[in-house]
Amino acid sequence: MSSPTRIQPRTLKGFRDFLPELMLPREHLVDTAKQVYRSYGFSPIDTPALEYLEILQGKGSDETDKQLYSFEDKGGRPVGMRFDLTVPLARFAAQHLNEIGTPFKRYHIATVWRGENTQRGRYREFMQCDFDTLGTRSLASDIETGLVIHDLLQAIGFEDFTIHLNNRQVLNGVLERVGLLPQATAVLRALDKLAKVGPEKVADEMMATAGASRSQADRVLKLAQISGTGTEPLEQLEPLVHGSPRGQEGVERLADLVNGLKAAGVPTKRLYLNVAIARGLDYYTGVIFETFLDALPEIGSVCSGGRYDNLAEMYAKQELPGVGASLGLDRLLAAMQELGMIEPVRTPATVLIPYFAADRLHDYLRLAADLRQAGIGVEVYPEAKKLGVQLKYADRRGFRLALIIGDQEFTDGVCQLKNLTTGESQTISLSSGSEQVAQEIQRLLVI
Amino acid sequence: MSSPTRIQPRTLKGFRDFLPELMLPREHLVDTAKQVYRSYGFSPIDTPALEYLEILQGKGSDETDKQLYSFEDKGGRPVGMRFDLTVPLARFAAQHLNEIGTPFKRYHIATVWRGENTQRGRYREFMQCDFDTLGTRSLASDIETGLVIHDLLQAIGFEDFTIHLNNRQVLNGVLERVGLLPQATAVLRALDKLAKVGPEKVADEMMATAGASRSQADRVLKLAQISGTGTEPLEQLEPLVHGSPRGQEGVERLADLVNGLKAAGVPTKRLYLNVAIARGLDYYTGVIFETFLDALPEIGSVCSGGRYDNLAEMYAKQELPGVGASLGLDRLLAAMQELGMIEPVRTPATVLIPYFAADRLHDYLRLAADLRQAGIGVEVYPEAKKLGVQLKYADRRGFRLALIIGDQEFTDGVCQLKNLTTGESQTISLSSGSEQVAQEIQRLLVI
Repeated sequence: MSSPTRIQPRTLKGFRDFLPELMLPREHLVDTAKQVYRSYGFSPIDTPALEYLEILQGKGSDETDKQLYSFEDKGGRPVGMRFDLTVPLARFAAQHLNEIGTPFKRYHIATVWRGENTQRGRYREFMQCDFDTLGTRSLASDIETGLVIHDLLQAIGFEDFTIHLNNRQVLNGVLERVGLLPQATAVLRALDKLAKVGPEKVADEMMATAGASRSQADRVLKLAQISGTGTEPLEQLEPLVHGSPRGQEGVERLADLVNGLKAAGVPTKRLYLNVAIARGLDYYTGVIFETFLDALPEIGSVCSGGRYDNLAEMYAKQELPGVGASLGLDRLLAAMQELGMIEPVRTPATVLIPYFAADRLHDYLRLAADLRQAGIGVEVYPEAKKLGVQLKYADRRGFRLALIIGDQEFTDGVCQLKNLTTGESQTISLSSGSEQVAQEIQRLLVI
Repeated sequence: MSSPTRIQPRTLKGFRDFLPELMLPREHLVDTAKQVYRSYGFSPIDTPALEYLEILQGKGSDETDKQLYSFEDKGGRPVGMRFDLTVPLARFAAQHLNEIGTPFKRYHIATVWRGENTQRGRYREFMQCDFDTLGTRSLASDIETGLVIHDLLQAIGFEDFTIHLNNRQVLNGVLERVGLLPQATAVLRALDKLAKVGPEKVADEMMATAGASRSQADRVLKLAQISGTGTEPLEQLEPLVHGSPRGQEGVERLADLVNGLKAAGVPTKRLYLNVAIARGLDYYTGVIFETFLDALPEIGSVCSGGRYDNLAEMYAKQELPGVGASLGLDRLLAAMQELGMIEPVRTPATVLIPYFAADRLHDYLRLAADLRQAGIGVEVYPEAKKLGVQLKYADRRGFRLALIIGDQEFTDGVCQLKNLTTGESQTISLSSGSEQVAQEIQRLLVI
């Protein structure tokens, strides 16, 4: 073949390759999430990456519309790439409601695309990891959503994290009492910035965009400052919503949530009432969750969600209430890197068998096959090279053990099992096949 | 909120949703493939769904160019959605060669898009499941590729399957002897249709498109009819390639491959020499693999691949030889459905706890949490409804067990464990917590 014109190998701005050292922990994270979701009876679903443009457009915010990857396909259909997993879930639920039945608990782990401004260090392709319970307004699903978040973080390996809880009804109740309910959207949009810009600027924005008076703004901010781990914040809330049925209901429901989470085993210190979190504005109608790593609160919430009244109203007549949350997979991965929770390993196998007795390929392959049967991940180096080269390779990839067998060892019916971390070696008999080797490897891997 | 204009919920032609009953076995298939790949030391990578158009265009065939989903992004860049995982691997390898080093063994399980003609029952979005070893021409990697295919099919649950083997050098050697080597592409394109259209039509095409004489065509077809499981076909091949060094090398390498696979434990009956398979024409230069299910050969190969000399020549100066194969995930899933290998289950959890003692939510949640700790998947029904409704739900979702506890049972410190398959129930004490229940559930699940 003649040499073709060479094309520069590169990825698009805002897109990236995942090399093994990042992909291995990412797969582990996905597997952990799946395992937790499954243990609660959430089932996997998948939806297409491409949807009719009308399904996606106008469903998020003006920003998501602007960031949408959209085009005409070769059949002249206007199409778009999904920018989240919630809009596809809404379309999916409306389309398959009769088949799936309710309550319907699903998880969906998939890639989404947004043409974000990459200067903010964001990627245009990232993975979302959502779980939702559709078709019920029950308190039990609110509690369960919190339990899943808690189990997830624990299963991933975090001990020090805090789940922030709120209920939109509490906010609405206070706004009702203050006389700002009709301007709820503008007020909550301002309030959402509290942690970032502080109370003064939030008050200014409320007055500018929601037409609030100074005293109205102060009353909302007073509410927003109520927070804490015990039952005290709930007691402080009571008088502020007194007389507003929706506010009282919100406070009650929040109390029931906290009690349910504790009853199921969540330590009190990990639950934090935070009336300032409003999230997503129009979207949520009940409980709201945000989750912060105590060591890295500045990266923002790593698992967020809440309750909504009607997911599929754009696509179906039936009301479809639900509750759920989304694990920020890539954000969490970045945090784990920063916290040194990720080992620099580039191989999923633990044992390398160097191949240096050139005529013994069949013996190496047979031994590796036997060890795999015993559940041990084994790579046989593909070429008969010098042992030193192969041990360097083992080191670069992060193998934990090497099983060294040259011609002499084969003749003597033994092998050298080398611990690549400590440098220690031991001689093991091969006379009774691979069994003894497998046992010794398993013993070393447990240590 | 006012009711919005309703949009018809639908998916694009050639795209589909995966509901839990299909997604659960699909995830199982993906997990099995990962486990097998990992056990050989293949590491996961991922690449973007979108690439610069110049990376993708002209890399497959005219057909893949036509089927490409391409558009201009909002920055005016011509981009395309990946149509396979081989072109992205080539770009990836050229771009990261220094970081990754060789030999480099990777797997990549990801979605690809092709605007295929859906009338042939094909989908425009499907998952590929590739593994490759880059940077070595060694026989050991050829053998290993066959071993991975073999382990994969076994791990998925197949016993009766056949791996067809060939080597492009054998074909080229015969073409050289026959005087058709310069027309190899046209000859092999015709030959690839042998199983579908029969020898007469293949000969016609060879004469029409490759300018072969009748006798040349017959000599190629004679070769193509050599096939079988023993060493006999290899012996038949020898004289046909005699005098062609590349042909002789091909036959030798094929013999070494078969011997290596047998030495590592592959039963002879699963290996089938088939000189007629050419696959991908220009692309492959050495061994070729195709895998057929004995019960459904008509669906075509479910795992195919081979050796290539230079993967990344479009993007890099260095030669990058390699060998690998791709599991046809969706095709295999369809085959498993047809063969009744898939259970109609819509939940990944095994136990449903009906929630019908309305005041006992905390007790239900606590018990479920304890059982999850013991590794058992448990769903608590989210609303306090009649037991009958909840057992119907359990049936529809495919739960295997229900743990029934009403007010009386809580008072008495017992529960009813109901086997939903057999209808049998047993009473278990809750006096010592969940331990006894967990043990009994585990016992029932093993049966």
